[in-house]
Amino acid sequence: MKANRMEAFSDGVLAIIITIMVLEFKVPEGHDWPALVGLAPKMISYIFSFVYVGIYWNNHHHLLHMVRKVNGGLMWLNLLLLFWLSLVPFTTAWMGESHFAPTPTALYGIILLLAAFSYRLLQRMIMHQHSGESSFVVTMGKDWKVKLSPLLYLIAVLTAYLHTGISCFFFVLVAVIWFVPDKRIEHVVGGR
Amino acid sequence: MKANRMEAFSDGVLAIIITIMVLEFKVPEGHDWPALVGLAPKMISYIFSFVYVGIYWNNHHHLLHMVRKVNGGLMWLNLLLLFWLSLVPFTTAWMGESHFAPTPTALYGIILLLAAFSYRLLQRMIMHQHSGESSFVVTMGKDWKVKLSPLLYLIAVLTAYLHTGISCFFFVLVAVIWFVPDKRIEHVVGGR
Amino acid sequence: MKANRMEAFSDGVLAIIITIMVLEFKVPEGHDWPALVGLAPKMISYIFSFVYVGIYWNNHHHLLHMVRKVNGGLMWLNLLLLFWLSLVPFTTAWMGESHFAPTPTALYGIILLLAAFSYRLLQRMIMHQHSGESSFVVTMGKDWKVKLSPLLYLIAVLTAYLHTGISCFFFVLVAVIWFVPDKRIEHVVGGR
Amino acid sequence: MKANRMEAFSDGVLAIIITIMVLEFKVPEGHDWPALVGLAPKMISYIFSFVYVGIYWNNHHHLLHMVRKVNGGLMWLNLLLLFWLSLVPFTTAWMGESHFAPTPTALYGIILLLAAFSYRLLQRMIMHQHSGESSFVVTMGKDWKVKLSPLLYLIAVLTAYLHTGISCFFFVLVAVIWFVPDKRIEHVVGGR
Repeated sequence: MKANRMEAFSDGVLAIIITIMVLEFKVPEGHDWPALVGLAPKMISYIFSFVYVGIYWNNHHHLLHMVRKVNGGLMWLNLLLLFWLSLVPFTTAWMGESHFAPTPTALYGIILLLAAFSYRLLQRMIMHQHSGESSFVVTMGKDWKVKLSPLLYLIAVLTAYLHTGISCFFFVLVAVIWFVPDKRIEHVVGGR
Repeated sequence: MKANRMEAFSDGVLAIIITIMVLEFKVPEGHDWPALVGLAPKMISYIFSFVYVGIYWNNHHHLLHMVRKVNGGLMWLNLLLLFWLSLVPFTTAWMGESHFAPTPTALYGIILLLAAFSYRLLQRMIMHQHSGESSFVVTMGKDWKVKLSPLLYLIAVLTAYLHTGISCFFFVLVAVIWFVPDKRIEHVVGGR
Repeated sequence: MKANRMEAFSDGVLAIIITIMVLEFKVPEGHDWPALVGLAPKMISYIFSFVYVGIYWNNHHHLLHMVRKVNGGLMWLNLLLLFWLSLVPFTTAWMGESHFAPTPTALYGIILLLAAFSYRLLQRMIMHQHSGESSFVVTMGKDWKVKLSPLLYLIAVLTAYLHTGISCFFFVLVAVIWFVPDKRIEHVVGGR
Repeated sequence: MKANRMEAFSDGVLAIIITIMVLEFKVPEGHDWPALVGLAPKMISYIFSFVYVGIYWNNHHHLLHMVRKVNGGLMWLNLLLLFWLSLVPFTTAWMGESHFAPTPTALYGIILLLAAFSYRLLQRMIMHQHSGESSFVVTMGKDWKVKLSPLLYLIAVLTAYLHTGISCFFFVLVAVIWFVPDKRIEHVVGGR
């Protein structure tokens, strides 16, 4: 029951994060199609963040199903993850408004990197609750997505100062990797 | 249980979408009735969107009750629908602020058209989960509302450049058609 | 189960309404106590609305527990109630910003009046679902609060043009009347 | 079931409070790291409030599990707590924007003090529902955190006029004290 409430609170925060990003789309002054052109970088930036928050929602959902016992540490790690994600609307807006300038793009990647680390910590703590179940830990431990993502974000951050197009390529790459929910977790859970 | 969480997240997003549209009503400068006149187009625009989001909430609710199994594809199609709906506050504000100028009205229709297509795709994927149950698929397949709506939105988009009053007529028409929840789905579900 | 989802959606909308009103408190320019003086009318206005939305949440909660069957009509009446309540942040801000000028105060009362009428309609429709249970209908039918509130709101609207202090008196009066949840409904439900 | 809905509504409000605070981070004009420097006080202020709201969510969660019976008084005390917390985004923004000037910092502490008092009242009312269970009341009655916090907030408010750094020290101190959820409540509940 407790994990349900943690899920509900997280869902609420994620739903609000995903929706308030739209408040950044200020009504343009003109009333014709060219008036929308200026919004294009913001729109691309919004699509990125919508997909990322969607991915987090989706995977967070799978992860929390593994929780055996909610304790203070778990709650705080979950809040740490939500903290980094709560900064996504700001970094999304800055990256869009700056037309993907290097520093805002790097900051966008840094916040995603910090969120990814927190997710990894959260996953580890939940894995620890299953430490007796060898097959399960092995399955989760092999989770290359969780290990690879921070590396890709780091590359995106560093390449932002070469060309932010390269950063965007890596942002898209992480999104593609995560697009499909982790079959192995589904398999282990389904197999129980 | 999983479908419940998808429902809860969608409800959260829809509740926020419907409510943040009100943030567009900036306090007018005057303190008398004429000061409100300038808000009239925004109010009409808001009423449209409130009704549409209400309709989506209502029908989405019926549709998700049909879900047999939540998988990645379903989650992403649902997020695609929410993505288009998340843009409704922006198009609502632009249409209202421009006093129903052609392009903002056409864009309003385009976003609704894209939401309607996503809804249709979501419905198809859920129908597919029931592919063995012939009567059910036949019932859902006959869903003329889901087929007619995109056509009406398309007409609304195209007629926006003749007169946006015609577009509004078609917007109202779609709303009227959807006003009553689909009795056939209720019937099939109730009959089980 | 269906009534639960209607409750959840309504709760979501009410939670957002009650919270986004705070966005109207813009950070003042000064950094001392006098800088807050200008916020006083907004604060009074906010307190009124917080209490009203709290009252609606509380009573709506009791009312929805009476629902036998959710149908389209009930859903739409509920959305009509939420529509009027969704305008409360706007009227709250206007009334506060205008320092309780007559027209904004009257509009504030009108929206509450329309919400109260919608609540009455919703209650009637739910009463109708219990039409066979004589004692229940009699109990609900005697609900003097629901009948008296619109009258008091109407007086508040009309007296706004004499002195908005009188309107405020009536706003406070309605709040006081509703403060305690209806013991009779609790009694009937508890007695089952 | 009723306590669940009170929990759900409170969670919704807390999730919105925690998230809309981010709207205060306006996109800076520059596109480089120095452009972020001006946001530092707002960020510190945001972190404080994120942690406090997280603490309230966490403890509120434990507290509501103790509820035997939801009545009007409990609902209103809960709304009073949410009222003070709903003002946190405003005081957070003011404190940050003023770079921790004395009055905004004092006001920040006052609102937290009022929230802490309301929490104490809520706890007392819930304790009263368990008045027959001596061990339970004794455990809860010893809750030194609930008793100490208002005192620490009061010191933070008063010292704001000496140096707001001292206030911040006490804000951090309260956060540290509350960081771990009350083991004794968990113990008593777990022991049943």
